[in-house]
Amino acid sequence: MRIALGVEYDGSPYCGWQSQPDGITVQDSLQQALNLIAGDVAGPISVVAAGRTDTGVHALEQVAHFDTLIERPLTAWVRGVNALLPSSIAVLWAHPVPDEFHARFSAHGRSYRYLLVNRETRSALYAGKVGWFHAPLDIAAMQTAAKYLIGEHDFSAFRSAECQAKTPVKHVQQLDIRRQGELLIFDVSADAFLHHMVRNMVGCLVYVGKGKYPPDWMAGVLAGRERSLAAPTFAPDGLYLRHIEYEAKWGLPQMHFDYIPGELL
Amino acid sequence: MRIALGVEYDGSPYCGWQSQPDGITVQDSLQQALNLIAGDVAGPISVVAAGRTDTGVHALEQVAHFDTLIERPLTAWVRGVNALLPSSIAVLWAHPVPDEFHARFSAHGRSYRYLLVNRETRSALYAGKVGWFHAPLDIAAMQTAAKYLIGEHDFSAFRSAECQAKTPVKHVQQLDIRRQGELLIFDVSADAFLHHMVRNMVGCLVYVGKGKYPPDWMAGVLAGRERSLAAPTFAPDGLYLRHIEYEAKWGLPQMHFDYIPGELL
Repeated sequence: MRIALGVEYDGSPYCGWQSQPDGITVQDSLQQALNLIAGDVAGPISVVAAGRTDTGVHALEQVAHFDTLIERPLTAWVRGVNALLPSSIAVLWAHPVPDEFHARFSAHGRSYRYLLVNRETRSALYAGKVGWFHAPLDIAAMQTAAKYLIGEHDFSAFRSAECQAKTPVKHVQQLDIRRQGELLIFDVSADAFLHHMVRNMVGCLVYVGKGKYPPDWMAGVLAGRERSLAAPTFAPDGLYLRHIEYEAKWGLPQMHFDYIPGELL
Repeated sequence: MRIALGVEYDGSPYCGWQSQPDGITVQDSLQQALNLIAGDVAGPISVVAAGRTDTGVHALEQVAHFDTLIERPLTAWVRGVNALLPSSIAVLWAHPVPDEFHARFSAHGRSYRYLLVNRETRSALYAGKVGWFHAPLDIAAMQTAAKYLIGEHDFSAFRSAECQAKTPVKHVQQLDIRRQGELLIFDVSADAFLHHMVRNMVGCLVYVGKGKYPPDWMAGVLAGRERSLAAPTFAPDGLYLRHIEYEAKWGLPQMHFDYIPGELL
């Protein structure tokens, strides 16, 4: 049978989601716990995720699936697995799905959140959990620049050299930026993302926010389709895979957990 | 000259604020960085804090002071020191104060916040930063019980055996409990606190919230003045020293940083 999981994790101690020959990943840690619950009889369990997050990137609710011949009550795949996982990973829910469900290929949308602390001193409480920019940012200019990125475009300018996507054309449905006290919150949704796409967008938006370029510079970067025209990739610390969109027919108990740290009183 | 500092820290990697013969503390780490900035000429700097937080307890804005003969621009005590501190500690501000100012004795009030995740599964993103209770909690009952603790009382029932306070009589000005999505936020203010007082209050409030006792049980616990009548001490993970109150005449640039993680969307 096939089982889908909702998974929350703090990505800071991991070399990303995907199993690696060197270094510990979220996938490795999760598979290890699942295999301890399943026992040895049916061969090792491997999990497939909706989105392969990079080193240091977090997830509010990653979705993954695995196949197993072992019958266990659903609570074993949640509470049992959580008891075996490190404190930085938690299974939120488990749900049986038909074999046609695929965590990655059945997903028709992804949302990310980027959190940026905008104050003079770095944050100790949010270390590893937020990006940081020390100088004032013009959020209205950033919002204007963000509008150029909405819609279906060739996002080659925001694509890392290692990106394995078949096409650089993606459809960005939402790119909201808001301030909550000392925090800037970026919410981005698209059908799919290129490698480093969100962090490269944030880098460019910070260039506009600090006044290095006017908002319409973003239109030129997009049209130029050259990575070298855009700003450097922003830190992974503030990036959260927030929500994966699936058709309602699968009945997944997704919770859309939010993560917005505090605001200045 | 005497300098006051605002200090934010993630207490999870430390054996509390106060220097210890064994284990690394926030005070040790801060003094080490301050001494590197001051240089050796004037003897070692030692810092005095408003409140000595326990192992695993965090601070949104601890206040501390130190004396030094070395003249440095104020930015050296902020940016310079931050460059030398571990990522889990940050100096928020430095401010020169007269010798009559004392971080601990000039303080006439303290506020703490306790964050409790109330959902079935533990939180991976907030590991070490929140307490956790898995079953539903009746927040109205907890709010009713909290009212018995407001005012000037003998808080012996909420005092740890190691407490060094001269008197168990404290004045609790505020004890608010509110729900924000999956989080319960407890805000407590008093002239001063006994050792473990907030965590013991939270433990008792959770007993009431889960229905083990009715709200007026709290009145009996308080009147009994016996630690053994109260609930076990709740985890340090969710506890934040939030604000220290001083007279305006000192001119401290306190920022009252807030820390409320996200809510369910």
